Amino acid sequence: MTKPTLLTLVPEEINKIKAASLEILERTGVNIDHAYAREVLQAAGAKVDGERVYFPPKLVIEAIAKAPRQFSIYARNPKNSIIVGAGDPVFAPGYGAPYVTLASGLKRKATFADFIKLAKLSGSSSNMGISGGVLVEPSDIPEQDRHNVMLYACMVNSDKPFMGSATGEKHAKDSLRMAATLFESDNGIPKQPVMISLINTITPLMLDERMVGALIAYAEAGQPVIIASLGMAGATSPTTLAGTLALQNAEVLAGITLAQTIREGTPVIYGSASSITEMRNGSLSIGAPEGAWIIASAVQIAHSYGLPCRAGGCVTDSKTLDLQASYESMMNLQVAGMAGVDFVLHAAGILESYMSVSLEKFIVDDEICSIVRRFLRGTKIETEDLAVQLIDEVGPGGQYLTADHTYQNFRTEFWPPTLSNRETYDQWRLNGSLPMINQAEKRVNEIIDNYEIPYLDKSIELKLKEMAGI
Amino acid sequence: MTKPTLLTLVPEEINKIKAASLEILERTGVNIDHAYAREVLQAAGAKVDGERVYFPPKLVIEAIAKAPRQFSIYARNPKNSIIVGAGDPVFAPGYGAPYVTLASGLKRKATFADFIKLAKLSGSSSNMGISGGVLVEPSDIPEQDRHNVMLYACMVNSDKPFMGSATGEKHAKDSLRMAATLFESDNGIPKQPVMISLINTITPLMLDERMVGALIAYAEAGQPVIIASLGMAGATSPTTLAGTLALQNAEVLAGITLAQTIREGTPVIYGSASSITEMRNGSLSIGAPEGAWIIASAVQIAHSYGLPCRAGGCVTDSKTLDLQASYESMMNLQVAGMAGVDFVLHAAGILESYMSVSLEKFIVDDEICSIVRRFLRGTKIETEDLAVQLIDEVGPGGQYLTADHTYQNFRTEFWPPTLSNRETYDQWRLNGSLPMINQAEKRVNEIIDNYEIPYLDKSIELKLKEMAGI
Repeated sequence: MTKPTLLTLVPEEINKIKAASLEILERTGVNIDHAYAREVLQAAGAKVDGERVYFPPKLVIEAIAKAPRQFSIYARNPKNSIIVGAGDPVFAPGYGAPYVTLASGLKRKATFADFIKLAKLSGSSSNMGISGGVLVEPSDIPEQDRHNVMLYACMVNSDKPFMGSATGEKHAKDSLRMAATLFESDNGIPKQPVMISLINTITPLMLDERMVGALIAYAEAGQPVIIASLGMAGATSPTTLAGTLALQNAEVLAGITLAQTIREGTPVIYGSASSITEMRNGSLSIGAPEGAWIIASAVQIAHSYGLPCRAGGCVTDSKTLDLQASYESMMNLQVAGMAGVDFVLHAAGILESYMSVSLEKFIVDDEICSIVRRFLRGTKIETEDLAVQLIDEVGPGGQYLTADHTYQNFRTEFWPPTLSNRETYDQWRLNGSLPMINQAEKRVNEIIDNYEIPYLDKSIELKLKEMAGI
Repeated sequence: MTKPTLLTLVPEEINKIKAASLEILERTGVNIDHAYAREVLQAAGAKVDGERVYFPPKLVIEAIAKAPRQFSIYARNPKNSIIVGAGDPVFAPGYGAPYVTLASGLKRKATFADFIKLAKLSGSSSNMGISGGVLVEPSDIPEQDRHNVMLYACMVNSDKPFMGSATGEKHAKDSLRMAATLFESDNGIPKQPVMISLINTITPLMLDERMVGALIAYAEAGQPVIIASLGMAGATSPTTLAGTLALQNAEVLAGITLAQTIREGTPVIYGSASSITEMRNGSLSIGAPEGAWIIASAVQIAHSYGLPCRAGGCVTDSKTLDLQASYESMMNLQVAGMAGVDFVLHAAGILESYMSVSLEKFIVDDEICSIVRRFLRGTKIETEDLAVQLIDEVGPGGQYLTADHTYQNFRTEFWPPTLSNRETYDQWRLNGSLPMINQAEKRVNEIIDNYEIPYLDKSIELKLKEMAGI
């Protein structure tokens, strides 16, 4: 029952990248647009010059050592609590897309109705460990209310863990207060980790005021954060994948060092989202094989520090749910899974290099998630599994269909597909040979029509509603 | 520049499977429907009882040790000669499908015209190392002539290595004579390895007269063979993947033992094609994640014997070129590539669990092959690649687009897609947003219309034509 393991770097290569990152942090430093963060880091030993913060290697190495290799995020339904870093990847749905692409291929600005549908798809999926964060950007909700309304929708439509707002200290504190209300904590802060938030660096080598503000608020409250870097090799990071890894690593370490300096032991996830630039038009490519290679390599680097890693997802550059979307999504999720990733943001729904989400793609990606999970489970290689006695009994030219062994094992050994079609050609034709996108469309409607919103105490729901201003 | 490596088994598990296979070969044995093969094996130490051959472990272990870890197959154009087992996988197109699925979705019996088109697609592909074998079964050619006509078409339409007929001793000898003619060898046998042939066992534990006859003919002539097993877990092999691996391994070792007993050092490839049975209808599933897991594991087992391995391919259970075909093909090829496979049969074109081939899918799969090859290439992690100096010069908030380093590196570091679309949404819409299947259809026609048949001496061509009876 060995866990499949993909290795792209040898230890010597990992050490070279890590040494380069420490050199970057010490020599070039990071611009941090947040006075308090700079003060705290300076007090811990960093050199500060204007906005620039230079990190001595010792500070970084000691800070990383304080972060846990695994941690729990508690759900209001205890059955849905998750452990990050325990071996199985946690999947979270697509995050941050401003558009929705319909089954017809048409694309439009996302709305709050789309958001709720996605929260229900996520809530019903046995693969998603997280209900959602910015499932889409609901254009019909005023920007200043959006973060609270989205959080309310995630909290109410699902009893899984959720993601907090990362758009500044104030929004993060709103998220913390709502989480405290949901978990009935008196002091405005949840008593244990109940949410996770996405803190992005600005590549190259910048941390902006909003992200740092949110990071500090969550770290002070002991709530987990993902510190992620998205270098576009050739545009915002070096063209060489080695250079992009070194730069990404430096940025993530800067964020983690800040988080641990604010509060020792803050649960953090090392986040890798870097890929390459399509040089013909300067746009980000998240479906490129180089991006997949970075995913696998980043997981190894994170693990070498004893940190859980976020990378991958069913991500694609395709504008529509087509062949390209399908093979790029499988490539990226499979590579992340095999590399041993701990947390997968964008595990379902993303199209068009993060610009859009498709509800039908969510369903197809959910199938890909379950395929990858089956692969990662592997199989037992014990004496009884090798079945030498059975093979002797069946003998040359025999069959196994009617063997007891078959009936005893096939349900646990074989993954049952939901969408993937294994009918014979004739069966498939006679059953209508409905394209997968249309099957997915039907399933979207079935799930949403039959979705049961999990019980939540009315008084809590009302308080949350009030806090969300709806 | 480490080669990405996927591991699914630890050495202890590999040893357990290998021990089980030796036990199966000694205790249960294999039915071999070929008197001469039984004689040869008996003389080498096997116990024979009727058709049943029992292999002592010593015979098997010694035979495997005689097979080379790598070998060359020489093409008539030396630039197209290949090395099997040298690290990079050799790709060969789909093999043996009786049907062709058209871009319209319609399916019909394959014809010789389809065969020639596929030979040209394969000849033009920079990913395919082999022109073809049974690219499709041409239903319009009488069965007794088919093997020679197909071989002629592969030999003439491409100057890459090709695959010989495996349908019995007579057909194999026809293939050998044609190869000798192409390579101007006088004695009816090519002087060096110039072709490879696919020898399938019949699971469980049988080798039939035709396959053994061909195997012996090729082994005697020093021509490489793939010895492959296709267990359908739950139907023709145990439901447990461990049991299927043990049974598959036993069958492949039986074939390799025979090949090495016939002629020491015969170049052989360990072939794994096993997967699971879809229990709802008893059909073979080649798109299942369990099949992908078997692929990765078989590569490790083969390599532990010091044998090159054939596994994987862009294979799918889907009846049409759709989302399922796309993600299953990527999954299977990627797993094989990462596991370090040496030879990939069915690298392009296969649909419907080997029943059909699609020319458009050939084009899409060719893109998947080149994506996987880019991933497998990895990247260099040397000081200059880490670009610490450049990162310092660019500094926080800078850009890399105009850096010399970018222009020096992006062409070698970034894979240029052919089909995968990385346009912005607006570009994509303005450029017609042509579905990939239609793009592939256009490319099929372009390739075939512009295909230049490589030069071949007229007198040789005429001799081959005569031998093929056309």
